[in-house]
Amino acid sequence: MTTHYFEHPLNEKTRIYLRVEALLNQLSISSQFSDDMQHLLFFRSLFDLLEIFEQIQLKSELAKDIEKQRLSYRSWLHVEGVDQKMLNNILTEVDDVHSKLMAAERFGQSLKEDRFLSTIRQRFNLPGGSCCFDLPALHHWLHLPIRQKTEDSNQWIENLQPLTDALKLWLRLTRETGHFQQQEALSGFYQSDAEDANILRLEIPMGYGVYPMISGHKNRFAIKFIFFASGQASCDNIDFKLAVCS
Amino acid sequence: MTTHYFEHPLNEKTRIYLRVEALLNQLSISSQFSDDMQHLLFFRSLFDLLEIFEQIQLKSELAKDIEKQRLSYRSWLHVEGVDQKMLNNILTEVDDVHSKLMAAERFGQSLKEDRFLSTIRQRFNLPGGSCCFDLPALHHWLHLPIRQKTEDSNQWIENLQPLTDALKLWLRLTRETGHFQQQEALSGFYQSDAEDANILRLEIPMGYGVYPMISGHKNRFAIKFIFFASGQASCDNIDFKLAVCS
Repeated sequence: MTTHYFEHPLNEKTRIYLRVEALLNQLSISSQFSDDMQHLLFFRSLFDLLEIFEQIQLKSELAKDIEKQRLSYRSWLHVEGVDQKMLNNILTEVDDVHSKLMAAERFGQSLKEDRFLSTIRQRFNLPGGSCCFDLPALHHWLHLPIRQKTEDSNQWIENLQPLTDALKLWLRLTRETGHFQQQEALSGFYQSDAEDANILRLEIPMGYGVYPMISGHKNRFAIKFIFFASGQASCDNIDFKLAVCS
Repeated sequence: MTTHYFEHPLNEKTRIYLRVEALLNQLSISSQFSDDMQHLLFFRSLFDLLEIFEQIQLKSELAKDIEKQRLSYRSWLHVEGVDQKMLNNILTEVDDVHSKLMAAERFGQSLKEDRFLSTIRQRFNLPGGSCCFDLPALHHWLHLPIRQKTEDSNQWIENLQPLTDALKLWLRLTRETGHFQQQEALSGFYQSDAEDANILRLEIPMGYGVYPMISGHKNRFAIKFIFFASGQASCDNIDFKLAVCS
């Protein structure tokens, strides 16, 4: 039976982190320009990222969170029974990512100042606005040799590398704090405490035909399972796996 | 030397037609769901189309334009020297497309009423808003077998078939009225008359490194060539091909 893998952020900041992770992932995959359409996803992801960077101070938020992880890992130094080699490896990685993050410009600053990108950004969100007559400069760019397009896209992506590395590390260390455990939602409902948690991870067997609706904050959360076919709440008992990550 | 192929609409209605053509094309290509990302383009194209349908009475505009083409082709009936067999084939095609268009519901009506589509449409335009926690129903759908997803997408696309057929026909017959002719833009500038024209088509050799900026309406138009590298107007003489389609 296949499984529906699902993640839910328990605070607004983590919600943004997960969205940015998804956008960076889309950006990386679509940067291959392997068909006539991938550029649409590439530029959409890039401009969505720029919009998020304008809305929140992502760099300082992320720096604070990486710093918190560093302090937490440091408290395990010289503690008996803790694998000190592994711990030191993590701390080296955290130090490296943190210092590169601090040295980076405000996320997206150079991208915002890029003439070509700003020309096309304005009209890109019009419905169907990526036609050649709406974006003649983009259509010229699309006709350039793939080598040159890849060079450009690599440069734009490279600009976001400090963010990518820091976010990946924070999310990896956060996800590693949780361990999947078997749970049962009685009559399609489950609730629990989650002290200072950031992410819930769920594995739901597809056979139930349900998806989760989750409400909650860092200390407490509730999961209601909804039938996909009807849009109604399920009253079945549902066995699923849950990991609470903080 | 490769060529930059370019189209420009000379009125607002044709502008919308070309955008809708591009969106229908994106929809069709991305409906193969051949990678993890194509669904993003598929739903984006579908929702962009719905937004356009809400803004303008596309069906009646298109019906009027097809009717105009029908009258124009009918005036060639029984005219000596005109291939009557070919003419009758076109007229049969026009009649067929027109009657199916008139019988169709308002474009996108069923799609707007589709529960699943309306659930995901609201959040789809958030930057990065296609994450599983923003759109749990969509993520359940993505886990369904490809057969079922294809069935759904075929049904949504089928709903737009009268539009697709009518638009394709109108654009084909319109494009066929123009014939590419060699032109020269002196000091990067070209202007001409274009009585009741709808679309300009251009072929520009890539070697010039320029793209066109076109202003105009149905009776007159001007083309200015811009250097891609600098964003400045070109002062070179530029040989290009132009077809004026009405």
